[in-house]
Amino acid sequence: MKFSDIVSQLSPDNHSLNDNPDLNPEIICITRIQETIAHSLSYIEGNKFAKMVATTAADALILPLDKSLQEQATQRGIAWLSSKQPRLTFARAIALFYQPYKPSSGIHPRAVISEGVIMGKNVAIGANAVISEGVKLGNDVVIHPNVVVYPQCVIGDRTELHSNCSIHERTHMGSDCVIHSGAVIGAEGFGFVPIPQGWYKMPQSGYVILEDGVEIGCNSTIDRPALGTTKIGKNTKLDNLVHVGHNCQIGENCAFAGQVGLAGGVEIGNRVILGGQVGVANQAVIGDGATATAQTGISSSVKAGDIVSGTPSMPHSLYLKLAALYKHIPEMYKLHRTLKKNL
Amino acid sequence: MKFSDIVSQLSPDNHSLNDNPDLNPEIICITRIQETIAHSLSYIEGNKFAKMVATTAADALILPLDKSLQEQATQRGIAWLSSKQPRLTFARAIALFYQPYKPSSGIHPRAVISEGVIMGKNVAIGANAVISEGVKLGNDVVIHPNVVVYPQCVIGDRTELHSNCSIHERTHMGSDCVIHSGAVIGAEGFGFVPIPQGWYKMPQSGYVILEDGVEIGCNSTIDRPALGTTKIGKNTKLDNLVHVGHNCQIGENCAFAGQVGLAGGVEIGNRVILGGQVGVANQAVIGDGATATAQTGISSSVKAGDIVSGTPSMPHSLYLKLAALYKHIPEMYKLHRTLKKNL
Amino acid sequence: MKFSDIVSQLSPDNHSLNDNPDLNPEIICITRIQETIAHSLSYIEGNKFAKMVATTAADALILPLDKSLQEQATQRGIAWLSSKQPRLTFARAIALFYQPYKPSSGIHPRAVISEGVIMGKNVAIGANAVISEGVKLGNDVVIHPNVVVYPQCVIGDRTELHSNCSIHERTHMGSDCVIHSGAVIGAEGFGFVPIPQGWYKMPQSGYVILEDGVEIGCNSTIDRPALGTTKIGKNTKLDNLVHVGHNCQIGENCAFAGQVGLAGGVEIGNRVILGGQVGVANQAVIGDGATATAQTGISSSVKAGDIVSGTPSMPHSLYLKLAALYKHIPEMYKLHRTLKKNL
Repeated sequence: MKFSDIVSQLSPDNHSLNDNPDLNPEIICITRIQETIAHSLSYIEGNKFAKMVATTAADALILPLDKSLQEQATQRGIAWLSSKQPRLTFARAIALFYQPYKPSSGIHPRAVISEGVIMGKNVAIGANAVISEGVKLGNDVVIHPNVVVYPQCVIGDRTELHSNCSIHERTHMGSDCVIHSGAVIGAEGFGFVPIPQGWYKMPQSGYVILEDGVEIGCNSTIDRPALGTTKIGKNTKLDNLVHVGHNCQIGENCAFAGQVGLAGGVEIGNRVILGGQVGVANQAVIGDGATATAQTGISSSVKAGDIVSGTPSMPHSLYLKLAALYKHIPEMYKLHRTLKKNL
Repeated sequence: MKFSDIVSQLSPDNHSLNDNPDLNPEIICITRIQETIAHSLSYIEGNKFAKMVATTAADALILPLDKSLQEQATQRGIAWLSSKQPRLTFARAIALFYQPYKPSSGIHPRAVISEGVIMGKNVAIGANAVISEGVKLGNDVVIHPNVVVYPQCVIGDRTELHSNCSIHERTHMGSDCVIHSGAVIGAEGFGFVPIPQGWYKMPQSGYVILEDGVEIGCNSTIDRPALGTTKIGKNTKLDNLVHVGHNCQIGENCAFAGQVGLAGGVEIGNRVILGGQVGVANQAVIGDGATATAQTGISSSVKAGDIVSGTPSMPHSLYLKLAALYKHIPEMYKLHRTLKKNL
Repeated sequence: MKFSDIVSQLSPDNHSLNDNPDLNPEIICITRIQETIAHSLSYIEGNKFAKMVATTAADALILPLDKSLQEQATQRGIAWLSSKQPRLTFARAIALFYQPYKPSSGIHPRAVISEGVIMGKNVAIGANAVISEGVKLGNDVVIHPNVVVYPQCVIGDRTELHSNCSIHERTHMGSDCVIHSGAVIGAEGFGFVPIPQGWYKMPQSGYVILEDGVEIGCNSTIDRPALGTTKIGKNTKLDNLVHVGHNCQIGENCAFAGQVGLAGGVEIGNRVILGGQVGVANQAVIGDGATATAQTGISSSVKAGDIVSGTPSMPHSLYLKLAALYKHIPEMYKLHRTLKKNL
């Protein structure tokens, strides 16, 4: 594909472009800046990689809006376009060269479809998938092999369920969701009441709602509650091995990294970012736009917009100060003992 | 269902009841106190929700033994019953209105049953479940679709295996267990001996024992050991994404929250509670009735009845003191430097 | 099996042996030192168990090179052999008595094999396994029931895929790998670019490489990247519930314990040991032979050979000092306040 064709497909309105029309190489692939080859398109973002403009083998680059980088590239005969969001432009460029695998529509003869399943148009169902009674599938739904859908679930248009995931009874999933392999949506919440003989199991009669555009990572688990719903808002994205307990209410456009765990009844606003392995306690409340860095333990609440770290969670700025001071604590203790003796 | 019918089914011996026989509403559903509607039954537990007696739309309430709440409810024309354990009474009330989905008994024509499998009465086996040679299933066992049971396993009466879980060779499971979707029971423990070329794999010839009433959460993993057993005692409940290493010996009536991880050879007594994301090191010993709060790291031992927190684990009371002091450490360091200079 | 036969099969060159040829018991099983019976072979390693030589019921022992233990055993009429690496010798002894379950070769009539799959000799494929178009399987590959292999994967000789695991498109796996139940290899990395409407999904066009002898634990997840590869080097072993993000590059002979999580683009050298629940941040770099103890949080880099602990990670020696000092911080703060008042 000619570089000029790529540019014209990347909504060039927001881009500036080197003005040499002869600098129009044939592009055969997209590469990371660390792995460029001739006829590849790559991108530069952030200071860490900026110096690689001087050495890259790429014939074309997506650059930030940075005159100096642009000039360097031009001097080296590299075609470029500049973007306010080079990472976004780069993602769009990859999509010109690559489409993920999708099975063709149709129901595999070895899929097991119960009577009374309601199905939209162009549905794809793979081998050994099991779709139980009362399930409703929208248009263009894609179900990979060995998926199990329990009774009474609703799966919205274009939603994709990857291999070996399990969708439990009454789950209600919107359009354009992706459930990755091995994820379990809507299984029983962890509710037991202590009794003298051990535990009485709280029946889990509620269900899970995933709104449009939600993505759930591999082997993540979203539990249904005793009553009411566990809800994940529009376009929220969860990475792998994340646990969401019963009755959690999560807002829109959040992103949770791998191995995050939410106990029961957690309330989370919109655009909340949780780093890897963050834990959130029962009934905690996290406001819009808050961020918790990796391994943070949130026991009660985080205000909108706050950045927190550590266990128990504290302002990120305090966390950084403490991290720098830990090494001094042994000498502080030494002086403390001397002073104590002298008092 | 009339309120009086509900009360009579909830073993009313331990309850007090409002004494107005005319206050006997028709109840159509059970609701959380935050989501009540007319003709619903809800419950109040703890101070956080007590004030909602004044505003709830519920026609009936389960209350703690609290005169003032009882009077408030009566004044508002709300039927009520009082219980020493309102949460338990409420759980029993839900069970009057809701039964979880169970497939009907019988073997799906698409299940794959090896020769020589021994089967009790009324077994239910779903589509694409694979039951290997030498497996023994008790009465009323329920196996959902796409479960795999490796050879020589024993599964007790009424035990339920949810979709996509894997039960590995020689696992011995008691009665009334529940294995949730995606869990893996009895796979090889993580045992490798360092050798010059890398690692020599320790053969894992042992097996896993789950006693009666054990429940294992979605995508949790319980490993078998090189020798001997990994054992989980009667009525112990594990939440999702929990890891139990080889040779762990866990007592009865414990409860482990999501993402807890036990390394190898851990010994845990009865009625131990581990909060979410707790980690326990090799060979650690935890006594009866101990509790570890979320994200605690236990490296050696915890005495019976102790409550511990933090990494490395410390008494919970010390943990709370430290949590309150962290913010003062920067000023402590400042003064420390001044004092040091002046000495 | 006679003890002398066991010794001769354990490459006795590196062993010393009790010199009484009459001490040659019949051995019927291998046991842990805590669970010995007559006619069993067990082993002693480390001080913790050394005293059990005086009481064990075993008829034979594998001992370290320790004269005093050897004499004690001889006096009690226990046959023994001594080894520089008793644990390794013991592992080899177990392998004489136990072989893990392997299904016999052949393709189950209920497996689903796409056209154009290329298959080596002696392949075993279990019921309901689904092998997609363009997949290439080496000789002696073992695929357990309900495994799903997406298109274009390459699986090397003798590699074993356990039940319910999912291998996503273009994954390239070497020889002698083991993928345990429920693991997901090569699913889409977690890549989203923020846009005003929420998130733009970064296409994940790369793939995962597992070199020879890699082992991936139950329900672990290894993501493929947007571009390039996620790579795990020769003989590296991962325990259960481990998450490896897109573009990670992991060296040879590493071992990661349960629930370790690596964010994207992490670079790890050879022979690195990560304890349970360790978390590693984006782009962090860990040198050859480094070790992180359980629950460590690594945010940037760890030098070759270093041992680190804590969050944020610090030298293990400092971590131990701090752990011993935490309990003094309240009194340090008390004195601090007194001093401050008097200044």
